[in-house]
Amino acid sequence: MAKVVTMGEIMLRLSTPGQQRFVQAESFDVVYGGGEANVAVSLANFGHEAYFVTKLPEHEIGQSAINQLNQYHVNTKYIARGGDRIGIYYLETGASMRPSKVIYDRAGSSIACADVKDFDFDEIFKDANWFHWSGITPAISKKAAELTKVACIEAKKRGITVSVDLNYRKKLWSPSEAQSVMKDLMQYVDICIGNEEDAELVLGFKPKHTDVSSGKLEIDSYKEIFKEMNEVFGFEMVATTLRESYSATKNGWSALLFDGKTFYQSKHYIIDPIIDRVGGGDSFSGGLIHGLLTKNPQDAIEFAVAASALKHTIFGDFNQVSEKEVEALAKGDASGRVQR
Amino acid sequence: MAKVVTMGEIMLRLSTPGQQRFVQAESFDVVYGGGEANVAVSLANFGHEAYFVTKLPEHEIGQSAINQLNQYHVNTKYIARGGDRIGIYYLETGASMRPSKVIYDRAGSSIACADVKDFDFDEIFKDANWFHWSGITPAISKKAAELTKVACIEAKKRGITVSVDLNYRKKLWSPSEAQSVMKDLMQYVDICIGNEEDAELVLGFKPKHTDVSSGKLEIDSYKEIFKEMNEVFGFEMVATTLRESYSATKNGWSALLFDGKTFYQSKHYIIDPIIDRVGGGDSFSGGLIHGLLTKNPQDAIEFAVAASALKHTIFGDFNQVSEKEVEALAKGDASGRVQR
Amino acid sequence: MAKVVTMGEIMLRLSTPGQQRFVQAESFDVVYGGGEANVAVSLANFGHEAYFVTKLPEHEIGQSAINQLNQYHVNTKYIARGGDRIGIYYLETGASMRPSKVIYDRAGSSIACADVKDFDFDEIFKDANWFHWSGITPAISKKAAELTKVACIEAKKRGITVSVDLNYRKKLWSPSEAQSVMKDLMQYVDICIGNEEDAELVLGFKPKHTDVSSGKLEIDSYKEIFKEMNEVFGFEMVATTLRESYSATKNGWSALLFDGKTFYQSKHYIIDPIIDRVGGGDSFSGGLIHGLLTKNPQDAIEFAVAASALKHTIFGDFNQVSEKEVEALAKGDASGRVQR
Amino acid sequence: MAKVVTMGEIMLRLSTPGQQRFVQAESFDVVYGGGEANVAVSLANFGHEAYFVTKLPEHEIGQSAINQLNQYHVNTKYIARGGDRIGIYYLETGASMRPSKVIYDRAGSSIACADVKDFDFDEIFKDANWFHWSGITPAISKKAAELTKVACIEAKKRGITVSVDLNYRKKLWSPSEAQSVMKDLMQYVDICIGNEEDAELVLGFKPKHTDVSSGKLEIDSYKEIFKEMNEVFGFEMVATTLRESYSATKNGWSALLFDGKTFYQSKHYIIDPIIDRVGGGDSFSGGLIHGLLTKNPQDAIEFAVAASALKHTIFGDFNQVSEKEVEALAKGDASGRVQR
Amino acid sequence: MAKVVTMGEIMLRLSTPGQQRFVQAESFDVVYGGGEANVAVSLANFGHEAYFVTKLPEHEIGQSAINQLNQYHVNTKYIARGGDRIGIYYLETGASMRPSKVIYDRAGSSIACADVKDFDFDEIFKDANWFHWSGITPAISKKAAELTKVACIEAKKRGITVSVDLNYRKKLWSPSEAQSVMKDLMQYVDICIGNEEDAELVLGFKPKHTDVSSGKLEIDSYKEIFKEMNEVFGFEMVATTLRESYSATKNGWSALLFDGKTFYQSKHYIIDPIIDRVGGGDSFSGGLIHGLLTKNPQDAIEFAVAASALKHTIFGDFNQVSEKEVEALAKGDASGRVQR
Amino acid sequence: MAKVVTMGEIMLRLSTPGQQRFVQAESFDVVYGGGEANVAVSLANFGHEAYFVTKLPEHEIGQSAINQLNQYHVNTKYIARGGDRIGIYYLETGASMRPSKVIYDRAGSSIACADVKDFDFDEIFKDANWFHWSGITPAISKKAAELTKVACIEAKKRGITVSVDLNYRKKLWSPSEAQSVMKDLMQYVDICIGNEEDAELVLGFKPKHTDVSSGKLEIDSYKEIFKEMNEVFGFEMVATTLRESYSATKNGWSALLFDGKTFYQSKHYIIDPIIDRVGGGDSFSGGLIHGLLTKNPQDAIEFAVAASALKHTIFGDFNQVSEKEVEALAKGDASGRVQR
Repeated sequence: MAKVVTMGEIMLRLSTPGQQRFVQAESFDVVYGGGEANVAVSLANFGHEAYFVTKLPEHEIGQSAINQLNQYHVNTKYIARGGDRIGIYYLETGASMRPSKVIYDRAGSSIACADVKDFDFDEIFKDANWFHWSGITPAISKKAAELTKVACIEAKKRGITVSVDLNYRKKLWSPSEAQSVMKDLMQYVDICIGNEEDAELVLGFKPKHTDVSSGKLEIDSYKEIFKEMNEVFGFEMVATTLRESYSATKNGWSALLFDGKTFYQSKHYIIDPIIDRVGGGDSFSGGLIHGLLTKNPQDAIEFAVAASALKHTIFGDFNQVSEKEVEALAKGDASGRVQR
Repeated sequence: MAKVVTMGEIMLRLSTPGQQRFVQAESFDVVYGGGEANVAVSLANFGHEAYFVTKLPEHEIGQSAINQLNQYHVNTKYIARGGDRIGIYYLETGASMRPSKVIYDRAGSSIACADVKDFDFDEIFKDANWFHWSGITPAISKKAAELTKVACIEAKKRGITVSVDLNYRKKLWSPSEAQSVMKDLMQYVDICIGNEEDAELVLGFKPKHTDVSSGKLEIDSYKEIFKEMNEVFGFEMVATTLRESYSATKNGWSALLFDGKTFYQSKHYIIDPIIDRVGGGDSFSGGLIHGLLTKNPQDAIEFAVAASALKHTIFGDFNQVSEKEVEALAKGDASGRVQR
Repeated sequence: MAKVVTMGEIMLRLSTPGQQRFVQAESFDVVYGGGEANVAVSLANFGHEAYFVTKLPEHEIGQSAINQLNQYHVNTKYIARGGDRIGIYYLETGASMRPSKVIYDRAGSSIACADVKDFDFDEIFKDANWFHWSGITPAISKKAAELTKVACIEAKKRGITVSVDLNYRKKLWSPSEAQSVMKDLMQYVDICIGNEEDAELVLGFKPKHTDVSSGKLEIDSYKEIFKEMNEVFGFEMVATTLRESYSATKNGWSALLFDGKTFYQSKHYIIDPIIDRVGGGDSFSGGLIHGLLTKNPQDAIEFAVAASALKHTIFGDFNQVSEKEVEALAKGDASGRVQR
Repeated sequence: MAKVVTMGEIMLRLSTPGQQRFVQAESFDVVYGGGEANVAVSLANFGHEAYFVTKLPEHEIGQSAINQLNQYHVNTKYIARGGDRIGIYYLETGASMRPSKVIYDRAGSSIACADVKDFDFDEIFKDANWFHWSGITPAISKKAAELTKVACIEAKKRGITVSVDLNYRKKLWSPSEAQSVMKDLMQYVDICIGNEEDAELVLGFKPKHTDVSSGKLEIDSYKEIFKEMNEVFGFEMVATTLRESYSATKNGWSALLFDGKTFYQSKHYIIDPIIDRVGGGDSFSGGLIHGLLTKNPQDAIEFAVAASALKHTIFGDFNQVSEKEVEALAKGDASGRVQR
Repeated sequence: MAKVVTMGEIMLRLSTPGQQRFVQAESFDVVYGGGEANVAVSLANFGHEAYFVTKLPEHEIGQSAINQLNQYHVNTKYIARGGDRIGIYYLETGASMRPSKVIYDRAGSSIACADVKDFDFDEIFKDANWFHWSGITPAISKKAAELTKVACIEAKKRGITVSVDLNYRKKLWSPSEAQSVMKDLMQYVDICIGNEEDAELVLGFKPKHTDVSSGKLEIDSYKEIFKEMNEVFGFEMVATTLRESYSATKNGWSALLFDGKTFYQSKHYIIDPIIDRVGGGDSFSGGLIHGLLTKNPQDAIEFAVAASALKHTIFGDFNQVSEKEVEALAKGDASGRVQR
Repeated sequence: MAKVVTMGEIMLRLSTPGQQRFVQAESFDVVYGGGEANVAVSLANFGHEAYFVTKLPEHEIGQSAINQLNQYHVNTKYIARGGDRIGIYYLETGASMRPSKVIYDRAGSSIACADVKDFDFDEIFKDANWFHWSGITPAISKKAAELTKVACIEAKKRGITVSVDLNYRKKLWSPSEAQSVMKDLMQYVDICIGNEEDAELVLGFKPKHTDVSSGKLEIDSYKEIFKEMNEVFGFEMVATTLRESYSATKNGWSALLFDGKTFYQSKHYIIDPIIDRVGGGDSFSGGLIHGLLTKNPQDAIEFAVAASALKHTIFGDFNQVSEKEVEALAKGDASGRVQR
């Protein structure tokens, strides 16, 4: 059991019931989620001491976000309180050829306006084994980018493993803005997770043959990029999920891990139906961190991809699965037979 | 942006939640819908001035039907008020090999009992570009058949394009009753939409090899019929959807358009899962009218079939999609990737 | 129309809404169900006088179980009242590679503690044509095993056809316990329903090549076992369903019947999506009893497998289908086209 | 335990959730109810063999009405099947000074169009002790009025006690129409239930000082009318509820019974809040019939008014209370303390 | 029927179901509302041409706000589109001594950032009879204050009646900020609505003996203030509601109107239970505008207070009542008897 | 901030939605609760380190109980896992004169079967300030009574303040059983909470004039008993709530505290409507413990009664209020005005 710290934004998620369109909604289902918070929940579910660091307003909606993290055993004691608002995202879940839609309303959130001094990194990183963040955090504001850098430096100087999920978001920044911030931060990163699109837009690597919207993936192209990434930034590991989007309801899912020497490719899953696509990548990161903390690379990537395949069948941002359930799938039982 | 008038019945739809059977229902979901009203909503969503003409009782249930049309931007100012009741249909949504079921309770509705003098066609058709109706309207009552004929005559004499969706309903009339009314009405029709079954039962054309319940479709057979239809009735265009029913949850979907010279066949979609099958044909009519008003025939049929494919993924009778969403699918992105 | 008696436990089923996980549930959907009760509902739906025999506590939850049986036309007049509690099972419905989960809380239920003298078998079996029970009933307690034996003896001495669904449940007893009770009871059984796993664990037959969790089935292996079973226990008929578990959402489904001379194999269905997997086997038993009461063996097995395929598309333990609906599917219409 | 037969219409009730207005409703709660059916459920709950006689369409909505009666132990075997539709009423529940609203859509229902020959009164009244109907039944159609008369004659000639709830409904007939039918039917009636308004509009008695909408009641005025009613029609008993409408949420509630000699006045209850006002009168009739079958007049009227007071706290048309619960209230425990 | 224009902010309202606390909510009910939008809906319900002017983002949540206004017949054609977000408020509904709670998240909304040039007042005020705004609008931002002033000037110069609801909100501005903006705007106002607290905080009048939280009201104190207000600002009319807060569930409700000469006091209502307190004041403004447009002052204030009393019994911000329903209550029928 | 330990049973609570009766329920709302767990949540909400000690099964339903405690900041690290089941109670919420009903199904729960050695009291009571338990815990089983005694001894020997809520439950034990266990345990108790009924049935004090079901309370009678209790058992403090049950919806509520010298009587509240009556007493205990830890006796009893009055307006067993909210009510603002 490791102490893992993740830092970023947790948002109020307002999703239309079932597959309703936004304009049909008379109510929204309420959960809370965000890239790094989702990773924290995964890790808590796998038995780790998971801490999530953010800033949230003092009102009851902010409190509810904390309560939901507590409900799933994430330690929230380093969360600062104050600021004006919690970021929001609206979600409409698609079906078949109709894609899911996300509308963000996150500007001016408490974490986007937080100061470095809201956080005591001596306390936060005391006895910590791992620090995880994603490319969303520095993208939300200048202050958040600064905060991310400080956190990376503080983690690094304590010898804590640092992982990042590049996670490019075009609504938050342009590729050039992203690169100007992210390239610099890569010096603190040990484990880098990101797909070819991220590699191009966030780190400036030229993609070759992948056409993402077609759902086709070219492993060879990935391998080249991974090698380049390792050379340029000296990552210990590089990993990506490989998603084939057949429809909003049906995806292919596998992953690739590179440790600088060997490529580890996971089993391939067909997920049909997808219950909730959001947080799929985060559940991979959570699974991978657990895998790398406890297993060899091949088992780690198998665990990560099985965990994230299961996430697609679970409502909400959080991956509500146990290590045992992930292991069962990773070991080959995808039959879905009733467990009595 | 065109002024499009549709006329017919809008019903209260009472559907069991999810895939519940009728005998299990403790509540019904409430929407309003009907062939021509559904077309009007589609056209309003694509930016047209869409008017729906009907008669509804003065009570709050009648008012709610109007309100729902207003909510989706259909102009309801020509709707007459009065009469005894709003027609009802009960809907149970199937799954896999269990079909959806519809129970009608529409006799004696306000529109079935409406008089021609309830409507001022000078006003209704002023500056109108298009008039659309379906074979359901004349089928609901003698008075409604008379009303339909008057409307056709009034539209025709103003040079308004008239389209019909043949839409045979065996619960409402027999083939011979249908033919006795509908063949006469075809003289006013420019654009005729109907499948082989409609062509046979409503217009008296002999089908050849199609076996509808098997889900197999024979394009060649359709082509022959379309030619005959054009010869006999002088339609400007004839169109049909081509549905392959694999199960209640999974259908194949494409369409065929004939302009008297050329056959335009659309792309083929697999819709899986179907969220709501009802109104699928109407969304095709709505898409086709928009297509013919704004595009060349091939693009028109592609737009119509993409629009109606999307409808199958949306709860309710109404097709809640924008022109932009339809274009995206028609242009080839069926990957269902999350739109952030 | 036959008088059919079934005897066993009916439980309160508490299921999470939709595909929610247990830890996410803020409410449970409430239905009542249990192997033999489910068979009784099937038979009532097919027009038989179906009686369900059990014992239930006197409070309103016990009453609600009775009321729900009454709602679906099962005669409950032989149900004894008293005892401490109704058994409960919690159900979480899976999706894709995530299996459904069942948690039982049934110890100490009224029927598990019932006495033989709570039931008047003269009354219960008067004019009865058929008695059905499952291997769950003798497994729940010693007293229930004793009760089952008495019921079998009473049925047999009146010449009533006796059927059993072997239904091994590892949470209730071990294979050796099961065999010590069940082998003895087989002498009263005319129609035996059970898969290869049941045959092995309950009756002690050695399986050969079937690997259940892989979803592969070997008909030849089944045929050998069926022959052995007939030889050893002198059953009139042996039957099994053949399930291929592709995922929690998609199963292959067919069945095999052996009358001592001929093997009758049913059509094969792909069920996708599965709405509710629970009670699938019971709906097969119900369909088979109806089939054997009214049809030749081939039609009986076709009816049984079509009935149970439909069950998978219906929420709850009970199979809410009419004979007419089952016949339509058995005769080949699996197109799922809307029934208007 | 008596055999009690009630006859009339059962309708599909579509009510808005909570206190939503009609124009806000996205769903309707579904129950079934109607004056005489409600009485039957009350009597079944009090342990009698209660039969409800009507006609319902063959489709699943008609079946659901039957199933709901069965669920609450009403015997439905004399219900004829056929005809076109089930009557409907829409219900919006008020609050405070906003009244509840009912919209009827019951014309052309199966029972309104039923023939006398749909019912076998030899069978229906065999061994029956009591026949109850309400003034709604003859009001719904000429055929229903004829049917009511035949039923009264058949009951009377077998010596069965006949009770009526006058229940004037202005949407169904005028006072003069009502009187032309109802006065004639009074010759068959032993027990007459109705308030002053009913006495005036249905039977032609002049009211004196009661102002119903003010919520004031004058017992003396009632006593005069009751005496007149007994003189003119020779009733064995006359009874009425006395409602004071303070608001849609708060009512006073008591009752008066006259046996030709003595007036029996019940305790007075304040009901606050009212959960569901509909069926309040029917639950009084049901309680009164049970009371008169098993108790002295004072206890009978206390039972009836306690039963109907409880009904106001229960959702739906049906009074879901046991005899024991009614007795507890009638004997004075209105404290509402938790029953553990 | 008048053309009435209202201008201000419409927000997404997210309320916990029933009386849940924020920290318990798994979903939020969704409606849209805001002071001036609520007035517009009231006026549309009373038969006027009601226009609501605001700015909303282009995404589907902004569209949904418009759709809901359309559903209730408010004309939205002057609504500008653009900007970043729709304001939000979270609502928790209290009960008994637990108050309702509102959390605002409205900074940076599209209307707060709108320019005067987003609106064409020539078009907006063409043929308009009335312009209504509230003290919330200038409070939300400097730009909104500027926009309000321009709108007042434009209305005034066309001779349009201008009404204001002072509506002080302490979360939006301080009393001194409010006075610096609002006092200046009063020169354009004909009809001023506001309670003693508003008069003090927004306009600087010293209150005398009222203790708002005690629920006691002193009419005499109000009369003095009203006279002063008329003197200082030359209003044509001044009006206020008089709320007595007994609990979150039970309020007293009446109103006072002063036309410079005479005080008109309304009937007094006890509202119990309150279903939804929000929008109570706005429904008074809507009722008063309708009253003043069509009635004498006494009838106007009676209409306004009856309309707003009814609002308290209706879920959502909007007052879903017809003129007929309000008249019935204003004329004295508060009995809540079922309307059949 | 104190460390407070509570120990007892937490149950799965299955309640019918709204005011539905058990026989109407199609779903149950799910929360978790139990006397001591409810106290722990109160104390966590008031800012204390609250620990709840129990034993729960290892399955997901047991886990969900823990998660819900975590969600509301109760420390669950001393909860043992194992055993067969979680206790259940079914709840039907009454209205007006219809009482709420509770059906227990708690026999054989994990905590009822727990061993003393499942708990490490050195750890549990380390640095603890307070230990609270209720009379329910020793009532559930012999082992639980033994466990309670051990816990009391362990607490006492560490000088921890011990409080008890006598809480007699007639379904769990008889008065003589209760007295044989409870009288002995009183030697460890400092603060005793219980009403006159508890005093009589659990401790053997003769009541004098109180008639609980009538809703009348006699303070003088209480005072005598309190004095006797203090004399006999040497309690530091004795307290009781004083409930007047007007109906299931409306209660009077106040409390009395005696410190051996002075009687402290609280303000009196009318709670109308009651949203959820369950846990009302526990919220008093929670409030009292907080009060005694931080205030003088009069303020403590005011805090306790205000806290528990608020509880009655909140769904679920847990009292979801902050110290600030309780203080506001205790200081006199019961107006229920909207908090913006």
